Amino acid sequence: MRILITGAAGMIGRKVAERLVRDGHLGGRRLEALVLHDVVRPGTEGPGVTALEGDLSAPGAVEALVAHRPDVIVHLAGVVSGEAEADFEKGYRVNLDGTRALLEAVRGAGLHPRFVFASTEAVFGAPFPDVIPDDLAPQPLTSYGTQKLISEALVNDWSRRGFLDGVSLRFPTICVRPGKPNRAASGFFSGIVREPLVGLPAVLPVPRDVVHTMASPRAAVGFVLHAATMDTGALGGRRAVIPPGVAVSVGEEIEALREVAGDKAVQLIEERPDPAVWAIVSTWAKAFEAKRGQELGFEAEGSFGEILRVHIEDELRRRVPG
Amino acid sequence: MRILITGAAGMIGRKVAERLVRDGHLGGRRLEALVLHDVVRPGTEGPGVTALEGDLSAPGAVEALVAHRPDVIVHLAGVVSGEAEADFEKGYRVNLDGTRALLEAVRGAGLHPRFVFASTEAVFGAPFPDVIPDDLAPQPLTSYGTQKLISEALVNDWSRRGFLDGVSLRFPTICVRPGKPNRAASGFFSGIVREPLVGLPAVLPVPRDVVHTMASPRAAVGFVLHAATMDTGALGGRRAVIPPGVAVSVGEEIEALREVAGDKAVQLIEERPDPAVWAIVSTWAKAFEAKRGQELGFEAEGSFGEILRVHIEDELRRRVPG
Repeated sequence: MRILITGAAGMIGRKVAERLVRDGHLGGRRLEALVLHDVVRPGTEGPGVTALEGDLSAPGAVEALVAHRPDVIVHLAGVVSGEAEADFEKGYRVNLDGTRALLEAVRGAGLHPRFVFASTEAVFGAPFPDVIPDDLAPQPLTSYGTQKLISEALVNDWSRRGFLDGVSLRFPTICVRPGKPNRAASGFFSGIVREPLVGLPAVLPVPRDVVHTMASPRAAVGFVLHAATMDTGALGGRRAVIPPGVAVSVGEEIEALREVAGDKAVQLIEERPDPAVWAIVSTWAKAFEAKRGQELGFEAEGSFGEILRVHIEDELRRRVPG
Repeated sequence: MRILITGAAGMIGRKVAERLVRDGHLGGRRLEALVLHDVVRPGTEGPGVTALEGDLSAPGAVEALVAHRPDVIVHLAGVVSGEAEADFEKGYRVNLDGTRALLEAVRGAGLHPRFVFASTEAVFGAPFPDVIPDDLAPQPLTSYGTQKLISEALVNDWSRRGFLDGVSLRFPTICVRPGKPNRAASGFFSGIVREPLVGLPAVLPVPRDVVHTMASPRAAVGFVLHAATMDTGALGGRRAVIPPGVAVSVGEEIEALREVAGDKAVQLIEERPDPAVWAIVSTWAKAFEAKRGQELGFEAEGSFGEILRVHIEDELRRRVPG
């Protein structure tokens, strides 16, 4: 089994790569080669790992990656929502042209790999029902959501044509994101629990009654590995899947934090409304039916408390109190 | 008022151009310049008309067009469904890259024009309900539908960003198409009435119970002119509109033909099933709610008999019998 991961230095990419190295196989097939690519050199090491750095949209870049002849491509590389909104041209160059170039290279090489694409729930834009059904028409209200929706359409057509075997994962917000804040407008959903858990202050830029759907990094890795190995016959022509997640309000997040870390932690959250963040977040969906995703075998946490426990176990290497 | 039409030598483009020349104005503003572009030189003549021929995807082509500083752009240029399916690369080059290049040129020029884009009901693919509601998720099952859906997403984002003021028309099949058959897989819907009406044989490649939604060329011109002049405030972020049309079976078409032209005309239709046509047509929608399109002021015929009467009046220059 030969696997290529783009965006492999990112949070999910790194975790998927580490998991693959640890397991040594995927779907019962031995891991022969793991090619990791990102704009900074991915740090994952192990047998068969090749770590590469570069600009995916540079001439020849995608062809060089595809020359490794992957059986599975996990395409995570992309500019995040806040940055794609702030830098129109970069967003389209990376998120649309980069994906298109990779798809063209795959088509040109005649590889027919499994192709797991990181899409987003931000393909949906307001107005929408409180719980979004699986067949609602996506209407993104950000350039990021537009670029991801377009890429999904390409993955569908490339799959229909038999150039690859695609699965587009409409990721919920991943929470709790470890590490430093990135430029995703959704960053505060993680920040308001991650920072106080280690005694640091955090800013909440939106109202407490904002409801949003989240899944843990551990669940996200599970989504990718399931998408890489599932029977795609059940997808038909509809390669975009909404995986399950936990729909939770910011207030409920804060109460879950209080339960594991007490009032002192909660007091580290400063409410400071940010119109720029709100302009993006207010267009996002609250909750998803995600019936099809569950039927297709994708699994996530059942509560925000569980998401918090996963964070404490996986990132803080602590047993969860209680 | 300065207007640019791409694909202006095509059936709808020619009719829109002729109508504009005849009217001499659009939405109460005098027609100053009408720039017509296509791969073959558009034949429409009149005061202020500039007819240009060339490849829209050639370097500099779209910039040269946008240099005419149009207030309204009607973007009809494109490769039709059958050809886009048969020639994968040409379809993407013209229908996606050509549209993207035009949008980029408009953005670069800072024009903010009204932008009327010819999309298609083929953005929807089976399985779908018998009557498609306005908010059903498009799932094209052809490369043509994919390219149009992607272009719609771009028009939405360009509109949201204020680079232009877009309206994407999800055209029903236009029937009765005058002139020679083209490579659109939908061509037979017109052929089976157009040819027998003038005593020529026609081939029916699909079963008689196929139901499909149609509007006349006259209605299509009306869609374009309404989209070019309507108040787009009512669209919000959702720039793609399903205009109304007539949902009719092939059998009902044939009976309407019999009514105006008798059994002798109907006997000129040869039923010869074509698996390649069926592979495309069987993925198409039957009927549309089109509630929003009607509320937005778009108008079409009420029956296939009316569509046939429009054809006989406009193309055969005859009064309709009865």
